[in-house]
Amino acid sequence: MQTIEEKLHDQGTFFEEGVQAYITYACGSSGKRLRPLLAFLVGGATGNITSEHLNLALIVELIHIASLVHDDIMDGAVVRRERPTLNAKWGNGLTVLVGDILFAHALRLATQFSDSQMSRRIADAAIGVCSGEMLQTERRFDVNLTLEHYFRIIEMKTGSLFAVACELGALLNNSSDEVTAALKIFGMKIGIAYQLLDDCIDLLGDEKNIGKTLGTDLIGGKFTLPILLLLQSASSKDQENLHHSLLNDSGVHREEVVELLFEKGTFDKAIIEINNLMDQAEAALLLIPKNEYVEGLYGMATYLRGLIPTKLSIK
Amino acid sequence: MQTIEEKLHDQGTFFEEGVQAYITYACGSSGKRLRPLLAFLVGGATGNITSEHLNLALIVELIHIASLVHDDIMDGAVVRRERPTLNAKWGNGLTVLVGDILFAHALRLATQFSDSQMSRRIADAAIGVCSGEMLQTERRFDVNLTLEHYFRIIEMKTGSLFAVACELGALLNNSSDEVTAALKIFGMKIGIAYQLLDDCIDLLGDEKNIGKTLGTDLIGGKFTLPILLLLQSASSKDQENLHHSLLNDSGVHREEVVELLFEKGTFDKAIIEINNLMDQAEAALLLIPKNEYVEGLYGMATYLRGLIPTKLSIK
Repeated sequence: MQTIEEKLHDQGTFFEEGVQAYITYACGSSGKRLRPLLAFLVGGATGNITSEHLNLALIVELIHIASLVHDDIMDGAVVRRERPTLNAKWGNGLTVLVGDILFAHALRLATQFSDSQMSRRIADAAIGVCSGEMLQTERRFDVNLTLEHYFRIIEMKTGSLFAVACELGALLNNSSDEVTAALKIFGMKIGIAYQLLDDCIDLLGDEKNIGKTLGTDLIGGKFTLPILLLLQSASSKDQENLHHSLLNDSGVHREEVVELLFEKGTFDKAIIEINNLMDQAEAALLLIPKNEYVEGLYGMATYLRGLIPTKLSIK
Repeated sequence: MQTIEEKLHDQGTFFEEGVQAYITYACGSSGKRLRPLLAFLVGGATGNITSEHLNLALIVELIHIASLVHDDIMDGAVVRRERPTLNAKWGNGLTVLVGDILFAHALRLATQFSDSQMSRRIADAAIGVCSGEMLQTERRFDVNLTLEHYFRIIEMKTGSLFAVACELGALLNNSSDEVTAALKIFGMKIGIAYQLLDDCIDLLGDEKNIGKTLGTDLIGGKFTLPILLLLQSASSKDQENLHHSLLNDSGVHREEVVELLFEKGTFDKAIIEINNLMDQAEAALLLIPKNEYVEGLYGMATYLRGLIPTKLSIK
């Protein structure tokens, strides 16, 4: 994965002087690079990892970075991956534009594929990411958000980009429809699982070990799976207290809510859901002839399962 | 031009429920549609106006709308084209996402062209628009901004999209390199002239007749051509007073500045520059065999000259 880091580092050079530094800073954060990794692994799992897979890997990561840049504006987050966010450094105005340029640059790179279907799918995924964010923003502080709607939101917001990294990674090797569809499902399931995991960490994790501002979901009224499950299972008396904690004028009572998540076993239910999705992702791989890269895809699921916070690590 | 309005009106339907209404509102404003008009006129000037010209017209207008949506966030503008801005209605967070979706949607539509060069040029233009905005934002309240740098900014911010509408309108008809280049120059020159005109109107115009919040450039520290010319020509004593007016802690003293623009004849100099650019735009058309659409391109220059505020209309 050295090459993707180098590529990301060099992206600033494609821009006007005066724009370069912002792009380089935005691309310089040390992410997990899960989406590029998926593009590479799927390339190896379905044939060869070509220069087009590298282009795909770069594009999906740039779209992800662009969405984070804009996300941090909306959340008012000041730290991400142990560095100040762009909005913290340069304000919201410039940061909106940095995100725009990253999106447009990613879609410009996508025009390099010989098949215009590729760039269309990538644009679709970018629209998915933004639409998911939008629906989530729209439903902030909505204690009546259904699980179905919530899953649709994270499918778009996170699943779509994971799915397109896998789908197009397979298409670049002219994989059969069956194999391509299976890998797309793998990407989608693992993407949704990863988002659930990220949401649990935001609620429960330890800021010092994560390198970004936590608890912003609750404060910003983004009610994620554990909260929604808690709302659903609560008695009417508990619901009343919970609404008070979540919608309190003077800010969310986070400790009270987290306490309840443990008391009612809701956190455990969310973990079960994450594991179910990982199982479904792995099941989709059964169709793919085994090689070391397919093993790598299984390995990614295993790695993500390892990130699931356990009660011990939290309390 | 009925068709472009219908097309714009229908764009919401391409999105997830819950996203549609925002896109429809953003596309529903009554703009001048200069960029789509250029795409159509160039189509007719170089051959036929095809359905691909309609697609091009739609794409350039969507990119323009997206940039305005984000621009209004940065300027804190509350009214545009006689309606509340999106940020005034729904806040900055949702508005960032509406702009993102419009950009990505435009670039998705661009993948429909059979030649991927087309979509690449469109992505380049989108990056140009955002980079120009960024450089301008970066240089806010900079009394040392050079004319050269300022022209580079508006070339990117406004010229690039006008230019690409013309260039690709010609390319879609397989025009010669010479004709394509001439039309690209026409678009670039008329785009820059239009931006200068818009900047003058922001400084001097009458809010009631324009339908948007005016004077935001000065308040936001965007020093446009008249201001830069004024700074350049002022004596050191006048410069000192001017810096005080422009950089005042309690806000810009707009009346004082506008008064000086008249007193020193700087406003006249800006008008001369606009007319020069229109002349250059028209000169680029001399190469193109005359027909009614070429006449239409000349007519557009004439129309824009008619928008230039005269002393009489201002004072």
